[in-house]
Amino acid sequence: MNEFSIIQRYFEQLSADRDDVLLGIGDDCALLQCPADHVVAVSIDTLVEGIHFFADVAPETLGHKSLAVGLSDLAAMGAIPAWFTLALTLPEVNEPWLQGFSQGLATLAQQHHIQLVGGDTTRGPLTISIQVHGFVKADQALRRSGAKCGDMIYVTGSLGDAGAALQLQLNQWDGQQLNDEDKTYLQQRLEQPTPRNNIGQRLVDLASSAIDISDGLVADLGHILDKSHVGARLDLSKLPLSSALAKVSRQDAVQLALHSGDDYELCFTVPPQHFARMEQQFQGQCTRIGMITDDEGLFYIDDNDQLIDLTEAGTGYDHFK
Amino acid sequence: MNEFSIIQRYFEQLSADRDDVLLGIGDDCALLQCPADHVVAVSIDTLVEGIHFFADVAPETLGHKSLAVGLSDLAAMGAIPAWFTLALTLPEVNEPWLQGFSQGLATLAQQHHIQLVGGDTTRGPLTISIQVHGFVKADQALRRSGAKCGDMIYVTGSLGDAGAALQLQLNQWDGQQLNDEDKTYLQQRLEQPTPRNNIGQRLVDLASSAIDISDGLVADLGHILDKSHVGARLDLSKLPLSSALAKVSRQDAVQLALHSGDDYELCFTVPPQHFARMEQQFQGQCTRIGMITDDEGLFYIDDNDQLIDLTEAGTGYDHFK
Repeated sequence: MNEFSIIQRYFEQLSADRDDVLLGIGDDCALLQCPADHVVAVSIDTLVEGIHFFADVAPETLGHKSLAVGLSDLAAMGAIPAWFTLALTLPEVNEPWLQGFSQGLATLAQQHHIQLVGGDTTRGPLTISIQVHGFVKADQALRRSGAKCGDMIYVTGSLGDAGAALQLQLNQWDGQQLNDEDKTYLQQRLEQPTPRNNIGQRLVDLASSAIDISDGLVADLGHILDKSHVGARLDLSKLPLSSALAKVSRQDAVQLALHSGDDYELCFTVPPQHFARMEQQFQGQCTRIGMITDDEGLFYIDDNDQLIDLTEAGTGYDHFK
Repeated sequence: MNEFSIIQRYFEQLSADRDDVLLGIGDDCALLQCPADHVVAVSIDTLVEGIHFFADVAPETLGHKSLAVGLSDLAAMGAIPAWFTLALTLPEVNEPWLQGFSQGLATLAQQHHIQLVGGDTTRGPLTISIQVHGFVKADQALRRSGAKCGDMIYVTGSLGDAGAALQLQLNQWDGQQLNDEDKTYLQQRLEQPTPRNNIGQRLVDLASSAIDISDGLVADLGHILDKSHVGARLDLSKLPLSSALAKVSRQDAVQLALHSGDDYELCFTVPPQHFARMEQQFQGQCTRIGMITDDEGLFYIDDNDQLIDLTEAGTGYDHFK
């Protein structure tokens, strides 16, 4: 089986559908039509075996996650998903693996109406790079730089689940408090994160800034603070925890929620004039966890009324540490 | 040195310049403005250490080649280069290597006015994926599918040089016919190919189809024939050979010109009504090597007036052979 038959057999199913793809897979370039009143939002992410995923992960979930991390970047800009490309480096042609991987990709791609428009299949250590492309109106894109003093800070979903699952897999924690359902839930949160595109797209006329949480809340909110030249106070009692994570010691759960990565939830800020609409439209989907301040730094107030600097305590996942 | 300081130190120099980049490196997505009357042409390519390049290749030339292969795809569509993204997987942070690699990228990027707009830096086996983006008018894009019976077949530059350099490096050939200048020339053709964007962009109202020669003339022209449902006759005496390759035995040189990859020249077809303009505008830059026919298959006529089927003789480089 050669490169062309791999693409035909496993990936052509992903490459039909959208009218704005004038030319898809099978030429030197794809030709793509952007809507006149929008700009294109693009992001590229790489997953490497042994670094970003375990060698024995199911190919379906790996297909899902490879696309989910890119969709999450589009969500964080408020952009509507449109197209993606896939650079796939494989140690060998393993047909059951390709079948599972492409199926995991296809299922998530169909849900988000995002089409595969090009790629490159090469031989080498298992590495997956996906570039996503979406549309957003230029003045509505959710940048990291728009947070202002007095804005409220929100997150979607729950935090720390993926980090807890990773600790379980690495046997850094025995998880004796958890039942099988909890463990399955946490593993799914790590391996098949849900990109928050539905929420992200609806935030374009509400939020002042946004980011997705890939490296941990403190690290990623830290990027908003840096780019916006503001600070923040977090209310640790408000951090949203899943029922599984709530079974862990309070201190461990908060540390995971603050510092562990891979949750792919959104963190965003909302200015005062939109608080009421925000609470009304996203009740139960988003949690207010703090406020933007005009001094620099990311702090919380502990039980003794002390201001604790979170940016000193850890900086999320650094790929080269 | 962490991921963010790598990007800042080595790649931010590549990320300024163009007015159509509303937001470049440093957010969840880049925001890019497409010209109203054009479509976006995109292509992604991966280079893997030990597969596509030798571990000891100079980082400057690797930076050059990583971008050149993508620029060549834009050239083959007649598209004007605009933006690129870089997914860089590194086994370690090697600052002199990063300095050289980014410099090689930057020099070629500046020549083509193409701007780095995003990327991902991860740890793992050395792997470089670059996606290029360019503009072309939808009805002017040079597709593989447009060749018609009676069109003339042209190529840019000379063929087989990169393949000869590879054979030298692999010690499959002693190169005793060549002087040092010849060897340096061939090595440069392999390691620092010249993407033919200047020619490609000027072909949009002349050529009926085009492709870049990455896998060998027979394999790549074969794609044009497949997509266009036509055949071709080549005149082997017309294959353009460099002065270095002309020193090799005639038979070996022709085999390299037909079947070896990595030259990144353009192969394209021109309909009869444009022959005169073609010869006039591209004299000395392009060589007519054959003609499109209405029977399927790729043939040449040998000295005994026999029709020899080239598609049987070899199919270029297959990444999974």
